[in-house]
Order: sequence, then structure tokens, then C-alpha cells
Amino acid sequence: MLVLVTYDVSFDSENGKRRLRQIAKICQDYGIRVQYSVFECDVDPAQWIKFKQQLFNVYDKEVDSLRFYKLGKNGQKKIEHHGAKPSFDLFKDVIIL
Amino acid sequence: MLVLVTYDVSFDSENGKRRLRQIAKICQDYGIRVQYSVFECDVDPAQWIKFKQQLFNVYDKEVDSLRFYKLGKNGQKKIEHHGAKPSFDLFKDVIIL
Repeated sequence: MLVLVTYDVSFDSENGKRRLRQIAKICQDYGIRVQYSVFECDVDPAQWIKFKQQLFNVYDKEVDSLRFYKLGKNGQKKIEHHGAKPSFDLFKDVIIL
Repeated sequence: MLVLVTYDVSFDSENGKRRLRQIAKICQDYGIRVQYSVFECDVDPAQWIKFKQQLFNVYDKEVDSLRFYKLGKNGQKKIEHHGAKPSFDLFKDVIIL
């Protein structure tokens, strides 16, 4: 099933940049980065449980936000993209919130 | 129907910050900001056409990215949120890509 993962990681708290990199790295193991903090992940139910747990182990639930959108089996049909494709470097570009 | 709008706006080109504010403002007219560049918008087909055109009038297709995810009528059931709710100021916080 296709799951969209979006996240905001706060830099107000300590280790924000590290958490951001770790979250992006975990998502990269399960899917494709389509925007800076947006990943499209095609996972089976068992992978999904493992994937979520890895994210929960890293993110700071007080200040970070994780959102999951279950797009289902033919999720690709529900997606429209306009404009530039991602070309940023995962670890180079930093977001300051 | 519920549509998820996500975007990346590049600051490499001129007026990036202005486009970012304009895009966020347009999205705010049609939906709720759930993360920095993620909006959930409940629109009918006519509104959707108008909404998209407003976004296309602002974004720079060479360097910005707009993604739309049609979550459908009972889209809310497909959403999972974990962690902090958004608390940023729309115009205060700047993203440097």
C-alpha cells in the first residue's frame, strides 16, 4: 500500500537537525523523497509497523510532527505533481523553522 | 472532497519568500495548515479548479514543486497524526532551501 509521510521537525529543541536527518534517512529506506519533508512509501503491513516504530524512536513528540496519509493500493492515481522535481542534497540543505 | 496540498518553494530564485507567503495564503483560503508546507483542503470540484489556478499563477514551475493528493470523500479516515500540532506564525518563520 502507498503511504505518504510528511513531517515537521523543530530546531527550537536540541538535536533538531540530527532528528531531521535521521527521519529523512529512515523514510528513504522505505520510499521516495518527493519534496523536502514529503516521502511516498510503498510498504506492506509488516513493513509499515516497523517503519513507524523507527520514526517514533527518533522524533520528539513534544515539538515534531509526523503525518501519515494512507493512499491505498492505487494511490498513484490520486497524485498530481506540478513544477520542479526534488534536486536537493539530503544532508546539505537545512530547514530552520 | 479532501485534497492534500504539499509544496516546496525554492529561495534560489528571486521572490522565493514572497511566493512562499502567497502560496500559503492561497492554501489558507481553502483549507487548514497541518504542517509548515502541508495543507488539508476540503473543496468541491469548482473550487478545486479555481484553487489550482491561483496556485499556478504564483508558483515558479522551473524551481518550485506543487503536489496534490486526492484523498477523496472519507479522506479524514486515511490520516494519522503524531506529535506536536502546528504552532508557527505563517509569515514569521522562513524556510531556507
